[in-house]
Amino acid sequence: MRKVVLSVLVDNTSGVLNRVAGLFSRRSYNIDSLTVSETENPLYSRMTIVVHGDEDTLEQIKKQMLKLEDVKGIKELKSGDSVCRELVLVKVKVAAQERPQITAIADSFRAKIVDVAKQSMMLELTGNETKLDAFIELLDGFEILELVRTGLTGLTRGAADDK
Amino acid sequence: MRKVVLSVLVDNTSGVLNRVAGLFSRRSYNIDSLTVSETENPLYSRMTIVVHGDEDTLEQIKKQMLKLEDVKGIKELKSGDSVCRELVLVKVKVAAQERPQITAIADSFRAKIVDVAKQSMMLELTGNETKLDAFIELLDGFEILELVRTGLTGLTRGAADDK
Repeated sequence: MRKVVLSVLVDNTSGVLNRVAGLFSRRSYNIDSLTVSETENPLYSRMTIVVHGDEDTLEQIKKQMLKLEDVKGIKELKSGDSVCRELVLVKVKVAAQERPQITAIADSFRAKIVDVAKQSMMLELTGNETKLDAFIELLDGFEILELVRTGLTGLTRGAADDK
Repeated sequence: MRKVVLSVLVDNTSGVLNRVAGLFSRRSYNIDSLTVSETENPLYSRMTIVVHGDEDTLEQIKKQMLKLEDVKGIKELKSGDSVCRELVLVKVKVAAQERPQITAIADSFRAKIVDVAKQSMMLELTGNETKLDAFIELLDGFEILELVRTGLTGLTRGAADDK
């Protein structure tokens, strides 16, 4: 089993997400995370898919994806030659007297405090997966009320194989 | 036509993305952006879907989504009572002598410079949609080599309707 991050350039059309997701679900492959949004060109969207799988099945899925008319290209984002980032928002149950503790955790990770309510605080953090996991673990002494992660997105480094 | 941001709590299973995406594509509804990733509880994932549509069709889609066995709840994230954020990575073609200009743009938006190569720089920025759009527009004098956005994700403010 290998974890891969796939960056897939697709036409910005209504059925493409369904078709790509179908390739994974037909093999009962669970996608760890997926983000899809417009690119610099409104005709195209870029999907970033994180998935665990064995080499053979992943190669099959890549091939089948490339056969889809609305898939324009696939790149694997490898850790050495790409930058991958993720965003997390966490809402933590915090009594007023505990706020300084949360603020200290936020400061040490350079997380932003984006909401403070009577009994809760919301924090925003961006980073690679390891950083986000460490941050969430550190908050574990508090009750996490809600948490949402975008999942990884990324680009290859340098200007070599652009577009 | 109204733009809505839907936060959908789903079982962390292999077919759910396919089923949800299918509800939109069957009506030729183009999803503007979608993110899906694990939550604080590994049994569940949270999807954030941004979509434009007319009120009636959106209501129908929400109802049909709730009928799916693996959909546990849907919330609409409205701008007043929620925090929505997005992450963008942009790779810009930059000659060495132009680097200070890009650095100045990055500083004014508090964007991070995450890669510098011979002929390119990569910037990372987090914010709401308006901020990201303004940032990308400001880079328009430069050649954007690649750009990837996660799409919006968000949580409701305060501790009231948690979980």
